Amino acid sequence: MANDDLLRKHKVTVVGCGNWGSVAAKLIASNALKLTAFHDEVKMWVHEETLPSGERLSDVINQTNENVIYLPGVKLGNNVVADPDLEHAVKDSDMLVFVSPHQFVEDVCMRLAGKIRKDVEAISLIKGMEVRVEGPCLISYLISRLLAVNCCVLMGANIANEIAMEKFSEATIGYKENKEVAERWAQLFSTPYLSVSTVEDVEGVELCGTLKNVVAIAAGLVDGLEMGNNTKAAIMRIGLKEMRAFSKQLFPSVMDQTFLESCGVADLITTCLGGRNRKVAEAFARNGGKKSFDELEEEILEGQKLQGVLTAKEVYELLRINGWLDLFPLFRAVHEICIGHIPPSAIVQYGEIHLPSSIPSSP
Amino acid sequence: MANDDLLRKHKVTVVGCGNWGSVAAKLIASNALKLTAFHDEVKMWVHEETLPSGERLSDVINQTNENVIYLPGVKLGNNVVADPDLEHAVKDSDMLVFVSPHQFVEDVCMRLAGKIRKDVEAISLIKGMEVRVEGPCLISYLISRLLAVNCCVLMGANIANEIAMEKFSEATIGYKENKEVAERWAQLFSTPYLSVSTVEDVEGVELCGTLKNVVAIAAGLVDGLEMGNNTKAAIMRIGLKEMRAFSKQLFPSVMDQTFLESCGVADLITTCLGGRNRKVAEAFARNGGKKSFDELEEEILEGQKLQGVLTAKEVYELLRINGWLDLFPLFRAVHEICIGHIPPSAIVQYGEIHLPSSIPSSP
Repeated sequence: MANDDLLRKHKVTVVGCGNWGSVAAKLIASNALKLTAFHDEVKMWVHEETLPSGERLSDVINQTNENVIYLPGVKLGNNVVADPDLEHAVKDSDMLVFVSPHQFVEDVCMRLAGKIRKDVEAISLIKGMEVRVEGPCLISYLISRLLAVNCCVLMGANIANEIAMEKFSEATIGYKENKEVAERWAQLFSTPYLSVSTVEDVEGVELCGTLKNVVAIAAGLVDGLEMGNNTKAAIMRIGLKEMRAFSKQLFPSVMDQTFLESCGVADLITTCLGGRNRKVAEAFARNGGKKSFDELEEEILEGQKLQGVLTAKEVYELLRINGWLDLFPLFRAVHEICIGHIPPSAIVQYGEIHLPSSIPSSP
Repeated sequence: MANDDLLRKHKVTVVGCGNWGSVAAKLIASNALKLTAFHDEVKMWVHEETLPSGERLSDVINQTNENVIYLPGVKLGNNVVADPDLEHAVKDSDMLVFVSPHQFVEDVCMRLAGKIRKDVEAISLIKGMEVRVEGPCLISYLISRLLAVNCCVLMGANIANEIAMEKFSEATIGYKENKEVAERWAQLFSTPYLSVSTVEDVEGVELCGTLKNVVAIAAGLVDGLEMGNNTKAAIMRIGLKEMRAFSKQLFPSVMDQTFLESCGVADLITTCLGGRNRKVAEAFARNGGKKSFDELEEEILEGQKLQGVLTAKEVYELLRINGWLDLFPLFRAVHEICIGHIPPSAIVQYGEIHLPSSIPSSP
C-alpha cells in the first residue's frame, strides 16, 4: 500500500475504556478491518488501572484483547491498541469517539485542547447532560467548543452488553450540516446487528438521551401503582410528546422525525421497560411515597444517584423560570412527586388539565 | 326547559352492546347528564339474546342498569336505555356510535339506510378492517357510503375493561374536515380518566388500529426468541415507521402527527406488551416455527383467528401487487414467517438490508 493511501485513511481513537467504550471499540475495529477508508489500527485511550494481580489494565487489554474489567469475555479485535497516554493515543487520529463518563469529559477535552490534529471529527456517545436554567449543557457543544471541532452524537436503544452479545439493535447519529461526515461515522458503527441511521439534528438526538430518564420515572410510578399497560402506554406517549415539545422550545431547529428514530421512541421504550430509573420509581410508588428516592437509591442502587431524578429537578427549574410549567404537566408532576409534594398517583391525573391541547403541537 | 332547547340537544345512540359498546355507553351516559348540549337519555341498540334464566338481555339491562353478559359488575348509568329494535333505537338520534364486531357492520348499515335522520353524524369504534389488494376497506368509509353520513373514528390504547375500571387511558378521534363535530365527539367521550384528542386524519387513525397487529406479531417473535428489550424496542420502532410509510403510500393525506397520538405509538406499545397477537407469536417462536399459527391459535385461542396473521397476509398481497415489498421489510418478514417460508429469527435480520434508508421517510 502506498504511503499516500495510508495518509488518506481515517484513523480512529476511542477516548474511553468503560463498558460502552469497549463495545464501541469492538464495533469500530471490525469495520476498520473491512472498510478501506479506515486505518486498520484502532486506538483506545485507557484510564489506567492496576488489576488485583498487579498488572496494568492497558497491558492486559493489549495481551488478551479483552477489557477484563469492563467487558470481560468479549474479544475486542486484535487491531485494538490500548494506550494509557491520552495525548499519544489521539495524536495521529482524525476521528475521535468520546465515551467517558459525563463528569470527566470536560477535563479530558481540556487536556486535549491544542494537542489534536486540525482536521479532527468528533462524536459523543455520552448521555447525561446537565440541564441548567439557561438551557441544557449539550456534551457535543462542550466538546465542540473546547476542541474547536465539529461534533456529532450517537444515541439510541442500545445497551452495551446486548450489542456486545451481537443482539439486534439500532442507533441514531445526530449531525450538524455535514451529512458526509455523519455517513462516515454510520459506516464505522454499522454491523449486521447494529443498524445506524443519521438525522440532521444534534440537539434533538442528544436531548432524547437525557429526557427519556424523566419519562422512565413516570413509567415506573405507573408500574408501582399497578395501573396496567394502557395507562403505561399513555404515559410513555405523553412523555415522548413532552420530550419533543421541550426540545423544540429550547432549539427551534429540532426535528419531529428525530423522535421516531432509535434515539427517540425506541430508547424511550427500552428505558421504560427495563432500567434503573423505572425500577426505583416503581419501588417508590409501591411504598406510597413513604420512602424517599434518596433512601431507595441507597437500598436498590447502593447510593448511586438516579439520572432521572436529577434531570427532572433541573428540567423543572428551567420550566419554572420560563413560566412553562403548565405546558409540561408530566415533567412537572414527575419532579413534584419525586420531592414528595404530590402523591405518586398524581402521575395519571391528567384528565383535569386537558393535556393534549395544552402542549404546543407540531405543525 | 323549553321545547326548542330539547330539540336542539344532540341525541346519541350506541349501535352495539358488546364489551366496548357497553363501556362507550357508560362514558357517553355520564357526559350526557353533565353537558347541556346532549339529551340525557342515551339509547343502546341490543342485539337481543336470551339469558339462561329465560330473561331477555335488553330487559335485564334496563332493569339492572348492567350488561350482565358483556360488562358484568359495572353500572352503565340509569340514563342508558337498551332497545332491541334497531330502527327504533336510532330514529330520534343525530349521533350514532358504531361499535359492533366488524363482520356485522355492513349488514347493520344496510338495515339502517334510509331509516335515520338526515343530520346524523357517525363515529366508528370498530377495529379490524380488511386490507384488499385495491386498498384497505376503511370501516368509516363503509358507514359513510352506506348511510350517506359523515363518519369519524375513535381509536387508541384503550382496553374496554380497563376504562370500565376507570384507569387512565387516552383515545384519538380522526375526523375529516369538520373539526367542530370532532370536538363534539371528544366532549362526549372525555372523562377525567379518558383523555381524548382529535386529529384531521380519518385514514391514518383507522389504519393504526389495524396495522399495529402486524407489528405485535413481530414483537411476539422477539419475545419468543428472548432477544431482550433493546431488540424489541427496535422492532416496535421499525414497525411504527412502516405503519406510517404504508399509510402514506395509500393515502397521501395521512399526517405524521397521527403516529404520535394514542392511536399510533401508545396503542402499538400496549398491543406489543400484552395482547393475543403478541402472545401467539411468542409461542410460535418458542416452538421454532414447528407448530403453525393455525395450530397455536387452536391451542391458545381455541380456534379464534388472530387479526394480525390475517392482516399481515392481506398487507403482503397489497405490497406484492404494487412492487413495494422491499420498502417494507418488517411487514414482509412477518407474513413470510407466519407461513413458514423463513424462520422466526429472520425478524431481526435487518442489518443486511439497511432498513432505515430504504423506507420512504417523512419530509
